[in-house]
Amino acid sequence: MTSLANLESALGYRFNDQAFLDQALTHRSHNARHNERFEFLGDSVLNFVVAALLFDRFPKVDEGDLSRLRANLVKQSSLAEIAQSLHLSNFLRLGEGELKSGGFRRPSILADALEAIFGAVFLDGGFDAAQSVVSRLYAPLLAKVDPKTLGKDPKTLLQELLQGRKLDLPQYTVVATRGAAHSQMFDVECAVPKLDLKVSASGTSRRAAEQLAATEIIALIQAMGPAKGGSRRARKNTQLSLPVAVPQENK
Amino acid sequence: MTSLANLESALGYRFNDQAFLDQALTHRSHNARHNERFEFLGDSVLNFVVAALLFDRFPKVDEGDLSRLRANLVKQSSLAEIAQSLHLSNFLRLGEGELKSGGFRRPSILADALEAIFGAVFLDGGFDAAQSVVSRLYAPLLAKVDPKTLGKDPKTLLQELLQGRKLDLPQYTVVATRGAAHSQMFDVECAVPKLDLKVSASGTSRRAAEQLAATEIIALIQAMGPAKGGSRRARKNTQLSLPVAVPQENK
Repeated sequence: MTSLANLESALGYRFNDQAFLDQALTHRSHNARHNERFEFLGDSVLNFVVAALLFDRFPKVDEGDLSRLRANLVKQSSLAEIAQSLHLSNFLRLGEGELKSGGFRRPSILADALEAIFGAVFLDGGFDAAQSVVSRLYAPLLAKVDPKTLGKDPKTLLQELLQGRKLDLPQYTVVATRGAAHSQMFDVECAVPKLDLKVSASGTSRRAAEQLAATEIIALIQAMGPAKGGSRRARKNTQLSLPVAVPQENK
Repeated sequence: MTSLANLESALGYRFNDQAFLDQALTHRSHNARHNERFEFLGDSVLNFVVAALLFDRFPKVDEGDLSRLRANLVKQSSLAEIAQSLHLSNFLRLGEGELKSGGFRRPSILADALEAIFGAVFLDGGFDAAQSVVSRLYAPLLAKVDPKTLGKDPKTLLQELLQGRKLDLPQYTVVATRGAAHSQMFDVECAVPKLDLKVSASGTSRRAAEQLAATEIIALIQAMGPAKGGSRRARKNTQLSLPVAVPQENK
């Protein structure tokens, strides 16, 4: 096992009592002194610290959007990504069954252990220590947050993009369904007539196919470059900066 | 309007910058500088502080039960009760419409404003100040928390009570439904044959009627006094202390 000191360096925190860190890394399959109570505590310290970070960073963003941003930052896949950057799987203590089935790679186990570490830092060093560890680990993610788009699904993004350009809503049409009832595939077309765009996409549900089609249309619109004409009068709050940057005219 | 100093006394916190408190008390119907962003922040500091209080107070309670307890302590009705004890409605700033419709009495408005105050204390005085205000206001509720029962519904409580006495599950029977489709009433019977108990109750849904019947049966069982015989061998974790205290045999 790699030395815990490496993990502490990556966290930017040295534990006074190593037992807290040990327990945070212990899955319930390994030992009765496992990390689930720490995870309860860590989840809530994480939620609060990320709330405070977002509150400071986006003074004009309303509470509904702040909630959406936070949900995206603290969701399992975001946590698992941070856990991977810390090489957390090298430090986990799992039971034999979990070890054999590759539990150390499971996003849920990684995310839970990372939350447990936040709880352990709070128990060991108090709130300021926990806040500083969470802030440090979240700094790269936070720097990339675009409050207008993060956590929104492609259909919503496309709708807002078109509204920002004073264009009609996109038209979605199911053009075919294939396969048996339990494994159906849906073929969907998405059209934006004013821009002369039409794409098709397939998915295991109508919604999934529509989201995929919306993603493709967004990419096409972005490739076309900035909007012309009417969009100059678009209201500020419907302006959209998309994940792939588009030069913004009205700033 | 009653002086804000009275509210500060009740909170046990004096604001450095009164503007934070003013904004926390301002409903969106009154002013654009309203309390909803503060509420976002306050909700998460509240969740965290209550999590930490429960974690400390109940070292043996698992994370699932801690979550149930917290959910119960931070739910709207609990917050509204605390808000009432602070006479918060005397301090709220509401728009005319809300004033006329009695918004200052609405549990949602009271609960939201209290959360906003927690957020304001954090902004004004930092985490320690917020923690101390939340801890102070929650002390009476926390003292009454019974981790085995708080937040469980009556049907669950009854089931656990009977399991603790090695008795069969209660039997629920719908004996009648009355009224038109849109305003139906359900008459339900709940029976515990081994204890020779049967009650009936009515509700606008089957579930509501069953919960009411379960509540009545629990009261009857509690009135019968402590269990005899088999229950002495009941496992510790199925022992139940109910809201109305029953002498516990196996402690």
